[in-house]
Amino acid sequence: MDHASLVQELRAFVAERDWSQFHDPKNLAMLLASEAGELLAEYRFIPNDRADAFSREPEARQRIASEIGDVGIALLLLCDRTGIDPYAAMRDKLARNRERYPVALSRGRAARPTNL
Amino acid sequence: MDHASLVQELRAFVAERDWSQFHDPKNLAMLLASEAGELLAEYRFIPNDRADAFSREPEARQRIASEIGDVGIALLLLCDRTGIDPYAAMRDKLARNRERYPVALSRGRAARPTNL
Amino acid sequence: MDHASLVQELRAFVAERDWSQFHDPKNLAMLLASEAGELLAEYRFIPNDRADAFSREPEARQRIASEIGDVGIALLLLCDRTGIDPYAAMRDKLARNRERYPVALSRGRAARPTNL
Amino acid sequence: MDHASLVQELRAFVAERDWSQFHDPKNLAMLLASEAGELLAEYRFIPNDRADAFSREPEARQRIASEIGDVGIALLLLCDRTGIDPYAAMRDKLARNRERYPVALSRGRAARPTNL
Repeated sequence: MDHASLVQELRAFVAERDWSQFHDPKNLAMLLASEAGELLAEYRFIPNDRADAFSREPEARQRIASEIGDVGIALLLLCDRTGIDPYAAMRDKLARNRERYPVALSRGRAARPTNL
Repeated sequence: MDHASLVQELRAFVAERDWSQFHDPKNLAMLLASEAGELLAEYRFIPNDRADAFSREPEARQRIASEIGDVGIALLLLCDRTGIDPYAAMRDKLARNRERYPVALSRGRAARPTNL
Repeated sequence: MDHASLVQELRAFVAERDWSQFHDPKNLAMLLASEAGELLAEYRFIPNDRADAFSREPEARQRIASEIGDVGIALLLLCDRTGIDPYAAMRDKLARNRERYPVALSRGRAARPTNL
Repeated sequence: MDHASLVQELRAFVAERDWSQFHDPKNLAMLLASEAGELLAEYRFIPNDRADAFSREPEARQRIASEIGDVGIALLLLCDRTGIDPYAAMRDKLARNRERYPVALSRGRAARPTNL
């Protein structure tokens, strides 16, 4: 399976470099946030109404995919280190979001932190 | 498949609420970074040598899994919107990282931004 | 002076709570990034062309000012801990930015990471 | 005054490059968060008990000061654009924090999001 085999490859990558010592969950949460910041940087001066088209420009797309790769790897490393299943965590959160944002109240209205 | 079926459920969740209008890639990159910031907040005053044990405490674990769910959902929404395959992006990045961090030079040494 | 007296008050706040032990530069960098993430969350579903007006709405303004307060405090704590003068650091960076973004080349063009 | 004169210089820097069009509060909040992510990256594999010493190493110190400069500039640009006084915001927040974290309850205990 794609997910499981990638996790195996990540484990091998880390083990070969003896990097497990640096990969406690605190450091991996930092890695994840700093990579998310790099992804954010790609869009910081792109207006909302150009963001889809920008994401399709070949050079931008390659950089964005590269940052998505970094964020995804950091997330999988953190999940593997803590033993948290990312798909179970996402399904749980989606179920909770269905309750927090009932269709009747949320339709067409952006959820802001204050609506939570 | 787990990944594909979750993406389908996320699409339905967004469509029912008519939230596609808010989910351009710029806004989703912001969502991802702000959720990564919440995950980071869990660990900000936990020392490195307690981060693994902390991640196993039942209440902390539940909050961390919940934040991982948020980050993962934001990442999948962004990938779906931009048409970027997260697993392909992670595999490409892992291949590049194998080159950037040769075992002989990287073994036991943390990769800092300046080492890139 | 405003800046110096606020730094004094922050030192007293930390000392009274014996929080210096938690405030090493790594943890303060995490605090700063997580607070910046909360500020970001305020704007995540606001379109660019409504962001100025949104920032003037009384309730939003109060939340934004509160997050700016958190970010500023985290920045001053980090500067005080590391002995880095924030105004000297900003002036140095502004001088460098004047060189990196010559007016003739930068006028009316957003600086993206690739332009650096 | 240091703060006021720096704000004037930042305004001139932005005006000369006609960048005001890119500097709505949403984009500036993204700039701030992405710069905070770069500062975070400096510390991501440094253990807590080495973070003070690391911050004094000449090369690391220079990079950290440079990132602090970026974060500070982004914060001042956002404050100037929204008309929010950063020192007033910090003082308000400090006053509120004194109430939220009474000395008797907070002494020697890290404030985690759940303690708020």
